Amino acid sequence: MSKIYLEKVSLEKAMDEYFKIFKDYSVETENIKVENSNGRITAEAIYAKRFGPHYYASAMDGIAVKASNTYGASKTNSLMLKKGLDAVIVDTGDPIPEGFNAVIKIEEINDEGDFYIIEKSATPWQNIRAIGESVMKGQLMFPVNHMIRPYDVGALLEAGVKEINVKKKPLIGIIPTGDEIIPPNQEPGKGQLVDFNSTMMKIYGEQWGAKVSITEILPDKYENLKKKVLDEVEKNDILIIIAGSSAGREDYTEKILNEVGRVVVHGINIMPGKPVILGIIKGKPVIGIPGYPLSALLNYYIFVRTLVYQMLNLDVPEMPYINAVVRRKVPSQVGLEEFLRVNLAFIDGEYVAVPRKRGSAAMESLVNADGIMPVPEKSEGIGINEKVKIYILKPIFSISKNVLFIGSHDYSLDILVNEIKSQKLGFHFNIQSVGSMGGLMSLKRGECHLAGAHLLDPKSGTYNKTYVKEILAEKKVTMVNLIWRQQGLIVPKGNPLGLGKIEDLSRPDINFINRQKGSGTRVLLDYWLNKKGIPSKSIRGYEREEFTHTAVAAAVANKSADVGLGIKAAADAMDLDFIPLLEERYDFIISTDFLQDIRMKKILKLINSEKFKSQVIVLGGYRTDNTGEIMS
Amino acid sequence: MSKIYLEKVSLEKAMDEYFKIFKDYSVETENIKVENSNGRITAEAIYAKRFGPHYYASAMDGIAVKASNTYGASKTNSLMLKKGLDAVIVDTGDPIPEGFNAVIKIEEINDEGDFYIIEKSATPWQNIRAIGESVMKGQLMFPVNHMIRPYDVGALLEAGVKEINVKKKPLIGIIPTGDEIIPPNQEPGKGQLVDFNSTMMKIYGEQWGAKVSITEILPDKYENLKKKVLDEVEKNDILIIIAGSSAGREDYTEKILNEVGRVVVHGINIMPGKPVILGIIKGKPVIGIPGYPLSALLNYYIFVRTLVYQMLNLDVPEMPYINAVVRRKVPSQVGLEEFLRVNLAFIDGEYVAVPRKRGSAAMESLVNADGIMPVPEKSEGIGINEKVKIYILKPIFSISKNVLFIGSHDYSLDILVNEIKSQKLGFHFNIQSVGSMGGLMSLKRGECHLAGAHLLDPKSGTYNKTYVKEILAEKKVTMVNLIWRQQGLIVPKGNPLGLGKIEDLSRPDINFINRQKGSGTRVLLDYWLNKKGIPSKSIRGYEREEFTHTAVAAAVANKSADVGLGIKAAADAMDLDFIPLLEERYDFIISTDFLQDIRMKKILKLINSEKFKSQVIVLGGYRTDNTGEIMS
Repeated sequence: MSKIYLEKVSLEKAMDEYFKIFKDYSVETENIKVENSNGRITAEAIYAKRFGPHYYASAMDGIAVKASNTYGASKTNSLMLKKGLDAVIVDTGDPIPEGFNAVIKIEEINDEGDFYIIEKSATPWQNIRAIGESVMKGQLMFPVNHMIRPYDVGALLEAGVKEINVKKKPLIGIIPTGDEIIPPNQEPGKGQLVDFNSTMMKIYGEQWGAKVSITEILPDKYENLKKKVLDEVEKNDILIIIAGSSAGREDYTEKILNEVGRVVVHGINIMPGKPVILGIIKGKPVIGIPGYPLSALLNYYIFVRTLVYQMLNLDVPEMPYINAVVRRKVPSQVGLEEFLRVNLAFIDGEYVAVPRKRGSAAMESLVNADGIMPVPEKSEGIGINEKVKIYILKPIFSISKNVLFIGSHDYSLDILVNEIKSQKLGFHFNIQSVGSMGGLMSLKRGECHLAGAHLLDPKSGTYNKTYVKEILAEKKVTMVNLIWRQQGLIVPKGNPLGLGKIEDLSRPDINFINRQKGSGTRVLLDYWLNKKGIPSKSIRGYEREEFTHTAVAAAVANKSADVGLGIKAAADAMDLDFIPLLEERYDFIISTDFLQDIRMKKILKLINSEKFKSQVIVLGGYRTDNTGEIMS
Repeated sequence: MSKIYLEKVSLEKAMDEYFKIFKDYSVETENIKVENSNGRITAEAIYAKRFGPHYYASAMDGIAVKASNTYGASKTNSLMLKKGLDAVIVDTGDPIPEGFNAVIKIEEINDEGDFYIIEKSATPWQNIRAIGESVMKGQLMFPVNHMIRPYDVGALLEAGVKEINVKKKPLIGIIPTGDEIIPPNQEPGKGQLVDFNSTMMKIYGEQWGAKVSITEILPDKYENLKKKVLDEVEKNDILIIIAGSSAGREDYTEKILNEVGRVVVHGINIMPGKPVILGIIKGKPVIGIPGYPLSALLNYYIFVRTLVYQMLNLDVPEMPYINAVVRRKVPSQVGLEEFLRVNLAFIDGEYVAVPRKRGSAAMESLVNADGIMPVPEKSEGIGINEKVKIYILKPIFSISKNVLFIGSHDYSLDILVNEIKSQKLGFHFNIQSVGSMGGLMSLKRGECHLAGAHLLDPKSGTYNKTYVKEILAEKKVTMVNLIWRQQGLIVPKGNPLGLGKIEDLSRPDINFINRQKGSGTRVLLDYWLNKKGIPSKSIRGYEREEFTHTAVAAAVANKSADVGLGIKAAADAMDLDFIPLLEERYDFIISTDFLQDIRMKKILKLINSEKFKSQVIVLGGYRTDNTGEIMS
């Protein structure tokens, strides 16, 4: 087998090559109690050890008789059966006494002292439940390589099988490495990162039927690491080395593999997850995985899952997927297979996939996704209205009920999300924060059920109306007010630089943090700058953009900026000061079709409730006088 | 709330009524470590405890600088930065030193002794990974009533959340009862049955997120049982009383409920599972479940699953299902909702559902099923070619690859099933044993991929051909020989009654056990009786039918019959004697379309292999000279 190295290797080729090597790697077997065998894989064919039921039992309440004793009985020729001798009383389920071979129903006999009187003969084996009706002794119950299900456990116990030989669980060893890496239960100092990759990998490995152990975190010391790798290869069936993110670290894994094993593939054309190293030591798979969490998870999922199933001699279960349409152009580099996180909404009879912000390898993008969209290696991306395959992260029945909101970020949305779950309204409220204009554009493309915007029209002094008329001219939508809120300057506690008005942003000693183009806050800022004749170039930091109020406040809180424009709730959340400049209106823009949907009715009922409004007021800087009202 | 009692209650009504009572029953909460929280349900909204990353980190290998120190640098005006003072070397991921606010890539600098030379100014915050890029301190991560997934665990650890409040697992208590019931690890005597219901229930309960405890098995003593019920109600959220199968037992549960609680529903129009009792004691659900395993399992699944999810404030996940067509009439009683076990085959572009033998409440019918077909209460059954909803027991990708065989039973099929799994051919070989004629009829209806038959045409002395021509006239099929096998009399060891020929079956001292109409063995018997002029009425037991060779042999082994007609392998399996009468041919009859299918090709390759043939020969009474040959 050849070594594929550092050059463009496709995922498909890497998988083929790597899995082929371990095709015949099989784990050992062990004998376990049937009670504990759910989910385990049979190591041999299993045969029934006894009949079920294992005795002849009465199927009725009545009397057990010898059929030959009853022959000739009729209405005109009743027969007497001596109790205890010719007839024995039996309940349903009772064993048939030795020598008896039929049961006569209680309703068909007359009780007369020491005798039962019958007026009908019995045929042999009438009303008797046969031995082996449920399971036959010696019968094949399960073939080899069968995964035991809960009712299989029942069937085995019924058949007298108390222990079975099963495949041992494949052992996965995980070695987290890196001088800056600390365990997840410790508090990281500056420059330190907690290792949570191992924990996620352990949970997934166990779900797939493996046993997972995590070693202590190893510092970046070559000899030390090499020794550990050799030790762990002995103990495990699959070994994972999680490399840190700093340069040169991955080389250690490669160097070790070259010294004591072999590198099969180094680098695959996927994103995230490109720098993965697939190797082999002493006939066992050893995988070097990059430390970025989404890269780590994707590589682990793709390679280790299949290896575990393969070692258990199981077919690898297909990932559940749906077909969805993409309503925007999604460019992608040819020669790179991308795995984008998407939200899904069921709109006008089909599933629409909306990619979440890419680039960042953040957990957040996975946690809030409904599915994963692979963009094939050979394509330049996905075209408008193209149908794509989406691997789903939630059950389809749940996805079909998603409500997808795209638009400007506001804290009251978090309250809404939580209340929907708290009141068990039966659906999820998914949010993509892309700013006001982005929301309207998504609604126009039919990507979401509703948008959220706070776009001031300077000419009329109104909110959203003119933008909606222009952008959503061909769509029937309804505007419903969510809240009024304070916009202003977010500054450090005590306002040390003494900022008070928009003009202060151009002071030479000030570092500003801006919002992205198309956000309502950016529209507001640009309007003010224009009105006051302040050139944007005069504001240091004008080019530095964040996507949410929270991110702006965080920049101020972490001293990377002196001031930002945003809402009071964001300032409060980060314990900053706030200088109010304007009260603005924030509306839902809802596709009018969706307004009649039971989910939207529930949402409107919820935002109209006193409970919701009072929680919003507590956030600070909010007014709910028009909340829930239709804005014309 | 009214009590619905013993009268016709529909499943829907029973569910509505019962679940409504416990709508607001909520379990308590507990604080657990995030590492152990996978699958648990949040008891409150969870917010991020720290920024992720929590410090400004270099996104490149290079030097950290103060941007203001670099202003004015250009090709024509290079600037010198003093090492350690104006510039600090940083690797990707390293924290940015205090007071610095930009990173210049290593490729863009020249190293000259104590200085770095730059020819381009840096903008503030360039090449720096922002604090909170992945997660913002204070941000809502998960709402209440959210089920934690493996990657949620990672996201929480990244955000510094080490413990969370979750719903306690609902506690299910199970009380098995019955004088004749013994634990599954004991060997049952005559009249004793092992309790495997509790074990199945425990596994399912744990899968749904509950904690399940099983008490010792209680004898049928009223006061004793009542005391136990009251104790266990205190300890648990849901209590299950598994009644035995004997008459009167269920009354105990009802009596206890009437004395210390309330019966909500007794008896539901479903099969299996009709006698279930839904009750309430001290505000907690107490359910009396009949002991027949399929009844027990269905009731438990329907009622306890929903209660567990409801108590955790979760939406009850929909059972996965597909739509399938039924190719035969399936009559069903109006006013009874039946749950039939079916096999599924993907044929001609659609899923075909084929009901397994009903009536028996045997585990076997569930273990070998692909799905459950509900026959609605208000219908008289299912008509030919009707589309029905099938709840699936296996993943759809697995079902789509099923090969469904319907026909006569033979032991070599078990070898085939096992070898297909052993050699990982990638599909299941499912068997419905219904006899030779039944198989041909199923193939005619398009219910299966292939049939198996050994039907002798007395006139021509050939096998199967004339039957196939008649029954499958309109279908293109191919006959492939599986094996030749010995048919003969199955008698007890040593042949105590000295049987030797067909004529002996009509001896007055002989009890015969027959096969069902349409089976090849029955066809053979009737042919012989006809030829020899033996009236069937002269054979005692002629009316008593079994469906497989194994069942016939079992009847002889268990002394409920003296003799049966069947194959040598069945006699051997039960350690009985065998008197050969005839060698017969057993063929696969394969839809010709399916003959080209890769799965059928694999099957043919397998049965042609020496490994398969030698395993068949070992069974005894077989010849494989024509195995795998096309029979014209």
